[in-house]
Amino acid sequence: MSIITLTTDFGTGSPYVAAMKGVILSINPDATLVDITHDIRPQDIRHGAVVLADVTGLYPDDTVHVAVVDPGVGTDRPIVFTRIGKQNYVVPDNGLLGELLERMPADQVVRIENRQYWREPVSNTFHGRDIMAPVAAHLSLGVSPEKLGPPAETTSKLELPKPRVRPGRIDGVVLEVDSFGNLITNITADMLVGYPTDERVCIVCGIYETYGILSAYAQQHPDMFVALVASSGRLELAIVEGNAAERLGLQAGTPVTVAWD
Amino acid sequence: MSIITLTTDFGTGSPYVAAMKGVILSINPDATLVDITHDIRPQDIRHGAVVLADVTGLYPDDTVHVAVVDPGVGTDRPIVFTRIGKQNYVVPDNGLLGELLERMPADQVVRIENRQYWREPVSNTFHGRDIMAPVAAHLSLGVSPEKLGPPAETTSKLELPKPRVRPGRIDGVVLEVDSFGNLITNITADMLVGYPTDERVCIVCGIYETYGILSAYAQQHPDMFVALVASSGRLELAIVEGNAAERLGLQAGTPVTVAWD
Amino acid sequence: MSIITLTTDFGTGSPYVAAMKGVILSINPDATLVDITHDIRPQDIRHGAVVLADVTGLYPDDTVHVAVVDPGVGTDRPIVFTRIGKQNYVVPDNGLLGELLERMPADQVVRIENRQYWREPVSNTFHGRDIMAPVAAHLSLGVSPEKLGPPAETTSKLELPKPRVRPGRIDGVVLEVDSFGNLITNITADMLVGYPTDERVCIVCGIYETYGILSAYAQQHPDMFVALVASSGRLELAIVEGNAAERLGLQAGTPVTVAWD
Repeated sequence: MSIITLTTDFGTGSPYVAAMKGVILSINPDATLVDITHDIRPQDIRHGAVVLADVTGLYPDDTVHVAVVDPGVGTDRPIVFTRIGKQNYVVPDNGLLGELLERMPADQVVRIENRQYWREPVSNTFHGRDIMAPVAAHLSLGVSPEKLGPPAETTSKLELPKPRVRPGRIDGVVLEVDSFGNLITNITADMLVGYPTDERVCIVCGIYETYGILSAYAQQHPDMFVALVASSGRLELAIVEGNAAERLGLQAGTPVTVAWD
Repeated sequence: MSIITLTTDFGTGSPYVAAMKGVILSINPDATLVDITHDIRPQDIRHGAVVLADVTGLYPDDTVHVAVVDPGVGTDRPIVFTRIGKQNYVVPDNGLLGELLERMPADQVVRIENRQYWREPVSNTFHGRDIMAPVAAHLSLGVSPEKLGPPAETTSKLELPKPRVRPGRIDGVVLEVDSFGNLITNITADMLVGYPTDERVCIVCGIYETYGILSAYAQQHPDMFVALVASSGRLELAIVEGNAAERLGLQAGTPVTVAWD
Repeated sequence: MSIITLTTDFGTGSPYVAAMKGVILSINPDATLVDITHDIRPQDIRHGAVVLADVTGLYPDDTVHVAVVDPGVGTDRPIVFTRIGKQNYVVPDNGLLGELLERMPADQVVRIENRQYWREPVSNTFHGRDIMAPVAAHLSLGVSPEKLGPPAETTSKLELPKPRVRPGRIDGVVLEVDSFGNLITNITADMLVGYPTDERVCIVCGIYETYGILSAYAQQHPDMFVALVASSGRLELAIVEGNAAERLGLQAGTPVTVAWD
């Protein structure tokens, strides 16, 4: 457990991230630190939940993932250690793990209360630095999660918009826009099983439509509006070699419908 | 001394940062490299000085902090090794350590002149890559600072705006805007000691005012304009769950007054 | 070979970068990961080629450089291992190494075809995660390049604009704008050898001109428009302590002429 990842809404380049890294390295100078992203939209727990679900499973077993998207900092919202699959998470208990928990139950939840593993004094505005960072560092040194506090039953759920799936038709929504301007939806590959992916399927996103679900961008010409299953397993809408979000004015929240004749 | 941090105004994502890292790893492949930030405003020494003062003290003893905000590159302004507290700094001698030196004197200052530890040829435009990076790498391998050049008496001071503190009234200024749009001032917690923090204190920032100094954002409702002592120990003005700088049009340089009845 | 660098057009802060890092660390948890940049302009192979050429040579021998600027992902464009000098590259064979190969021939080229070293299943949209990252990780563990696939003769060339060099006159172009707004050209120091650099040389960029080629920014006053040879060995146009690109409205593609009386 010597790899620690960081996911925050502090903004890439924020010295707040560097503050957390300093605290971690002061406790475990041998920790390997990896940034997942610090560009979670400020205080957007849903955004953080989707990124954690899509990325953290790629890390080695026993990695410690710290996520700080924490509008409730300074209130009595708990901070929890949660083990899901073979990954460890240290997060405010506000739904950040909601998308992961949709896929797999937690194996262990501990309410982080033992101040022995915190940085003192604890500020009321930066628990990432004063609680989550030092706890993650101690975990990476082999401290048993049981020592962090009492077991808890569950962690908070999160209401992410779910697609409505009916025979021959799925109604979903754009969840995220990636850095290429591709539109990532909440419709996943498993919902498409058993249906044709050729021109018999029509995908509508806002006022735009396309026929067929590709398996690679390069199956169509540049500037074409296409649908395909992205590397995350989510249905994605894109302009080949272009920025769909900018050129079509589409964004997170836009309805997406997949329908077969 | 195997942790090396980098603070520059090159911009996050700049290949110039990667150039420095390549030079360091070529000398010490086992160095642990950490980015403090590369988003110091171009050539803004004051900005760099505040970030170094607020963050570097969190790092393990004997960390080497390299900072490159260097409008005088190519002139004869010296480059210095400076030890402050238990931290080591390699910087152009232009005031970058000024805010740290306000808090604590330097234990050692060495003028970096021994070309044996530099990269050759030395360009006139990128001493970060050709002098500071290799010197930091050699320090991290255990080279004694005395070998880098002759001792120097002092390093440059920096005139940061200082608050005017009188009984019942402090006049300060916004130093920085963080990534959440919170306004970080030059008024620090120690100046507030002995005064009430309830509604008897009024904080004015530009044309906006608020009463009371909170200890956590969550003590007020979303969208409220509030004052609190931030995790850095500085008085901060914020909109709860919002971006104060954007919504109120406030920025670095805005006067801030704290006054008690 | 335990240092692995990453260069992509995913955007700094993109979780796609973190996905690649997770895959690498799952295979080699001891790999040292370094970001060269993730701000290559989307699908701009020339931009990637220039950054790789200017930076990767600074890294220790046997570093593995992974570059993902890959508009052809999902087509049958090959992915190659290429050894140039003492550096190793894992890239789509689309010209990304073109600028490096202008300077030095490849010592070894291998077409990456052996799926044993890939991540399964391989998506059609993210070969960076599914092929290049795991192959780089295996190389860093000492897997011999020959095991990755059959030898190949050459890798793709790239047509970068080349300066026209005549006696007393060079016609080139701005290749890049750096984070300071400095204009980096395709005219290199070797083309200037044997000519005077004082006021007898005139440099014209767009509608602006300056006389003399400086050796440091600080040789002129702030706000002056100057030419100098940058740390990369390229002729650069800059405003001293200012942003030339913004203030003069100049950008990549602007013609640059150097002429002597």
